[in-house]
Amino acid sequence: MEQLIQKIVQGDKRSAAKAISIIENDSQEKYELLQHLYRFQRKAHIIGITGAPGAGKSTLVDRLIQEIRGQGLKIGVIAIDPSSPFSGGALLGDRVRMQNHATDPGVFIRSMGSRGTLGGLAKATKEAVRILDAMGNDVIVIETVGVGQSELEIMNVADSTVVVLNPGAGDSIQAFKAGLMEIADIFVINKSDLPGSQKLYHEIELLIEMTKQQALWKPPILKTISTEHQGIIELWMALQNHFSFIKEKGILDRQRKQDLEKELEEILHHFFQHRIEKWKKSDFYQIVMEKIYHQEVNLFDVAKQTFEQLIGEKKNR
Amino acid sequence: MEQLIQKIVQGDKRSAAKAISIIENDSQEKYELLQHLYRFQRKAHIIGITGAPGAGKSTLVDRLIQEIRGQGLKIGVIAIDPSSPFSGGALLGDRVRMQNHATDPGVFIRSMGSRGTLGGLAKATKEAVRILDAMGNDVIVIETVGVGQSELEIMNVADSTVVVLNPGAGDSIQAFKAGLMEIADIFVINKSDLPGSQKLYHEIELLIEMTKQQALWKPPILKTISTEHQGIIELWMALQNHFSFIKEKGILDRQRKQDLEKELEEILHHFFQHRIEKWKKSDFYQIVMEKIYHQEVNLFDVAKQTFEQLIGEKKNR
Repeated sequence: MEQLIQKIVQGDKRSAAKAISIIENDSQEKYELLQHLYRFQRKAHIIGITGAPGAGKSTLVDRLIQEIRGQGLKIGVIAIDPSSPFSGGALLGDRVRMQNHATDPGVFIRSMGSRGTLGGLAKATKEAVRILDAMGNDVIVIETVGVGQSELEIMNVADSTVVVLNPGAGDSIQAFKAGLMEIADIFVINKSDLPGSQKLYHEIELLIEMTKQQALWKPPILKTISTEHQGIIELWMALQNHFSFIKEKGILDRQRKQDLEKELEEILHHFFQHRIEKWKKSDFYQIVMEKIYHQEVNLFDVAKQTFEQLIGEKKNR
Repeated sequence: MEQLIQKIVQGDKRSAAKAISIIENDSQEKYELLQHLYRFQRKAHIIGITGAPGAGKSTLVDRLIQEIRGQGLKIGVIAIDPSSPFSGGALLGDRVRMQNHATDPGVFIRSMGSRGTLGGLAKATKEAVRILDAMGNDVIVIETVGVGQSELEIMNVADSTVVVLNPGAGDSIQAFKAGLMEIADIFVINKSDLPGSQKLYHEIELLIEMTKQQALWKPPILKTISTEHQGIIELWMALQNHFSFIKEKGILDRQRKQDLEKELEEILHHFFQHRIEKWKKSDFYQIVMEKIYHQEVNLFDVAKQTFEQLIGEKKNR
């Protein structure tokens, strides 16, 4: 494990990939890994990019990688795979994309599915970000389809969140409904050469006015045509602006502190779960569950008694 | 609380709505409520209905309510609101729909958003189902937009899951990607009068063949035009078939037992969280968090020590 960490810190991609697999499998080893990772100061700018399927996120991220690499910065990408929690695995597009940057030591791309991530995808994403951070990446991009509650939770991991929309098809209303208005730090109208681009711009402008009246940060609305590399520099500048903003206002500090509090709680619950698992292996457990099922005892009463038994009643508490 | 439970059992809608609010707010009161609810034997058939936005789920559920009411059965509906975790509240359409059945004492409809449900929407849904079950509903429908990890988790609460698709627009591939293939017990092609209906039918058929080769239950594919009340009786029959199937094969029993195990664990973690919250109010906690933030101590080591402190080292364990 010590060796694995060392290689990760040296930026070794295979070791980082292996570490992410450990996280995905949520094994006991994971906590040994995390224990080492907590030694490293976090410094990367974590960017979330979200939007409906087909909005052009992958291409946009691809262009952003080029831009960021052009400035000599290292970048790590976690592409959250919305595919099945059962079949698992990355989408074909991601695999192809990964190959584009396979020879560049300054780019690390990894798809993460929901398979095996027992603790939830948002938690696994946060842990994977720690690995990418330890690798020495300056920028970490989390890319996900912007639908559903867990996707919103994933975006909470990011320092700066980009919501990608397309002209036409009532995208702004969908975004509003899906809760994307509140998490967006930057709006991107991609495929902005399509008809309806200006209309969408005004719709978003209106929604920002409505929802962000008291906000310190008003999300800029950028237009991009990622297939033609248009607007990418502007996006990167806007991202840097936002990062400076949250650093200056102490927002980043506060968020990182909250993250640590959350992580501490999660580890405590993990330890507790470990104790529950032990208890579940007892014969007594099987008997009790049968009794609960046949309504001979109340589930809640059993929980109370078991808790006392598992933790013991401490004095002076 | 005792009185609230009594009213719920008598089928009082306002009391049920109040109880669901208690669950949504995840307050201490909630566990008192659950404690009482665990007294009641579960008997309702829990139906999940999922599909992309605009697939016609709401209308389909509306027609299904009519069908089920026509047989004198009581029905409860939980419409999961995919809207913002920040703005909260139900969509307008749901409010309108609720009014359609407001005067029927045998129909209870409630929207649930993600706002305030700290423990996750799937957990809150499961708890709300307990309330609807205690009300004496014969059928409980959970309706949700079929995208995202948490929506799949919500569908795990259901005994029988219906995936609603529409002809055209590559719905079958999207469904496959989103993991809906694995959770579907019944497929419904709604708006089946639209072009491409037969094509979609064959696509789903092929996907079922590919993914369900070893499955005991092969999901039927039904065609409906819910706006014209077509195929609704067939859907209700298919749902009853599936429920009989899982009862006969012992699948329902096994699922319910697993649910109880999960619920027991969740309550144990809730008790533990309560203890963590107490600890977080100490001055010591603030000092430790500052030290973690400034990397003077390792988060993981603190977690270990804190756990020992919180639970005490029990002998013979």
